[in-house]
Amino acid sequence: MDKLTVVKVGGKIVEETESLQRFLNDFKTISGYKILIHGGGRTATNIAERLGIETRMVEGRRITDRETLDVVTMVYGGLVNKNIVAGLQAKGCNAAGFTGADLDLIRAVKRPVKDIDYGFAGDIVDVNIRELRVIINEGVIPVIAPLTHDGSGQLLNTNADTIASEMAQALSSHYDVRLIFCFEKEGVLLHPDDEKSVIPELNRSLYAEYKAKGIIAAGMVPKLDNAFQALMNGVKMVWITNARNLTKASASGTLIRPDE
Amino acid sequence: MDKLTVVKVGGKIVEETESLQRFLNDFKTISGYKILIHGGGRTATNIAERLGIETRMVEGRRITDRETLDVVTMVYGGLVNKNIVAGLQAKGCNAAGFTGADLDLIRAVKRPVKDIDYGFAGDIVDVNIRELRVIINEGVIPVIAPLTHDGSGQLLNTNADTIASEMAQALSSHYDVRLIFCFEKEGVLLHPDDEKSVIPELNRSLYAEYKAKGIIAAGMVPKLDNAFQALMNGVKMVWITNARNLTKASASGTLIRPDE
Repeated sequence: MDKLTVVKVGGKIVEETESLQRFLNDFKTISGYKILIHGGGRTATNIAERLGIETRMVEGRRITDRETLDVVTMVYGGLVNKNIVAGLQAKGCNAAGFTGADLDLIRAVKRPVKDIDYGFAGDIVDVNIRELRVIINEGVIPVIAPLTHDGSGQLLNTNADTIASEMAQALSSHYDVRLIFCFEKEGVLLHPDDEKSVIPELNRSLYAEYKAKGIIAAGMVPKLDNAFQALMNGVKMVWITNARNLTKASASGTLIRPDE
Repeated sequence: MDKLTVVKVGGKIVEETESLQRFLNDFKTISGYKILIHGGGRTATNIAERLGIETRMVEGRRITDRETLDVVTMVYGGLVNKNIVAGLQAKGCNAAGFTGADLDLIRAVKRPVKDIDYGFAGDIVDVNIRELRVIINEGVIPVIAPLTHDGSGQLLNTNADTIASEMAQALSSHYDVRLIFCFEKEGVLLHPDDEKSVIPELNRSLYAEYKAKGIIAAGMVPKLDNAFQALMNGVKMVWITNARNLTKASASGTLIRPDE
């Protein structure tokens, strides 16, 4: 099977011109087929504030009322996505931007209201890569914004890490897939404030141990859950690292491995 | 050659839920391959105002400073485009939204400053339909936002009528193309305030006559120039009509014909 790399890049990196350019230069050097999934939360919060729309977050997840949905549709699907696409084109990479509504790529359901009403937040139910594969095989690099749809005309706000993991899983039937989460930290850290305390490798049992001890907590838990789920469903390798290490084959960041 | 219909729809129709739904129902019934090009100026002006950004228009063209470019990128490429795509998906049409940066579809140059500095407004220099054709032939309906790029990472704001005309011309080497401009008026009118005064057919000599007499003026001139240019470059038929006549084969609107 052909190699395909799914890269998730955090909002902070793609929302500033300088770090975006550096990232795109690195991303360009990845050989084989590739897909980029991006965030954009900081810009969304900023635009919302300028529009007089209050941003409410619960456990790192954005409460997406109707006005906030319009903001994230504008920011993720328009501003951030199209600037990445134009940036890649400038580097000779034939990119095309998509949301989960385009090509019916990612269907989701509006998250059921339990304790918290997340509004127009979508939980993924289906990933359809039929037309996407045709495009990838033409040499196009899909750039995916963290938005999905319910198939009845409703756009939904969906976590970019989850989209990356689900896309990687769906593609693993057709490609030899590795999944890279890159962000502004060095990797999964033993001590959250010490960038030198990177855990070089994690398997499921070590993860369980660190989680039980409270060493790994907060925002890293859903990311790692996504990582292990991808590994269980056909993805060959998951790597969590600083974006500027993207071109280094190893010896940086955290490698997530299946249990031996 | 296979039939392909390029439809340009005015912003007003796609920016309101009710008229958008009606339009998409009609658009769905068009047989054969199809492409949709949309505007979104009213929403852009509205969002700009809410962000405290002044909108300046010269002869119906938006002066696009850096902040305004961000607004149109958000509104055209994100909000309007993705709501149309999700709306089409809900009707079983497999749509995918693009700007001119996606797939390197439309390259433009920043308009040279003469009397007026239009800012980040783009004049089209090249239309590349290589990958788009692959997607169209897969049954996908491209939905195109009025944005282009310069190939060096700069997005540009470009008139949607011109994009529709240029796309129709580029596609006419591979498909039997008809181009439909649909908007909220009945067609090209003899008397601007009388919707019953539709000119049923126009050829180049009649157009020149009406233009000389001042009957056709203002916003209709660039639209008709685009229409005649398309006809001269391979497009089989151009039709200008009210959006709600889209399903009627004829007997409405204005048919633009090449000279006999």
